[in-house]
Amino acid sequence: MKKYLEDFSVGQHIVLGTASLSTEEIKSFAQQYDPQSFHLDEEAAKPIFGGLIASGWQSASLCNRLLVDGLLGHSACMGSPGMTELNFLQPVRPGQQLTAELEVFAVRESASKPDRGMVSCSIVLNNDEGQAAVSMKGLLIMAKNPKRS
Amino acid sequence: MKKYLEDFSVGQHIVLGTASLSTEEIKSFAQQYDPQSFHLDEEAAKPIFGGLIASGWQSASLCNRLLVDGLLGHSACMGSPGMTELNFLQPVRPGQQLTAELEVFAVRESASKPDRGMVSCSIVLNNDEGQAAVSMKGLLIMAKNPKRS
Repeated sequence: MKKYLEDFSVGQHIVLGTASLSTEEIKSFAQQYDPQSFHLDEEAAKPIFGGLIASGWQSASLCNRLLVDGLLGHSACMGSPGMTELNFLQPVRPGQQLTAELEVFAVRESASKPDRGMVSCSIVLNNDEGQAAVSMKGLLIMAKNPKRS
Repeated sequence: MKKYLEDFSVGQHIVLGTASLSTEEIKSFAQQYDPQSFHLDEEAAKPIFGGLIASGWQSASLCNRLLVDGLLGHSACMGSPGMTELNFLQPVRPGQQLTAELEVFAVRESASKPDRGMVSCSIVLNNDEGQAAVSMKGLLIMAKNPKRS
């Protein structure tokens, strides 16, 4: 069922889904958006990170993919004004199983636009050792349910 | 010349470069990382955004590409612990010329690791109408120059 602003509440916890990044996907993203040696070359990455790691921007984007598949794709989301935090906590390595979870910490109606409101949430991407690899806090603009207003 | 921690100072301003995103690049990124209708389908994007817009994560990643090309690629950067802000301020549309600029607002040595330090900076991605489309504040871990220590 499609989720509107009214369907979100403080403390709500949603497991968004699981995904992983292959070596090829890590290098391909890096070539386009983050061509630093430790995202492109296993040998160059060893002294600093012990092996190839994904761009933080790719890990965050993967997290977003899970957010869309697990929530936004069946919601009345109208975009996002941004994030108030984005933390790259642990290296993301090829083949790791990464699970994203969301928690809602505030819901409010828009003061200026009566058809929508804002959902504040934190999202954590955990690796297969149970460590938080990426975390973020941000805002989602969500339409109200027109049938209820 | 390769930049080390010692080469950064408060107030330093660096124009990182210019790039743009094509319709194909916007849809291709969205298919992989942000499959919301307003990043994939011109018609679906019209009522909300007046036309197709790039995923904020793609605009941020493009900003990062300009950061690597314009600075990090010839620096002793050892990664980043994250961002303290990431703002999606204006829609990014196909073909817009986007220019990224960086300003340094703090430089400090690491308290625990004597070979490195942290550069705090803000980065703004401006569109061709002079509007800030994306802005972020974040940290870069930078090695000290081994010849100077």
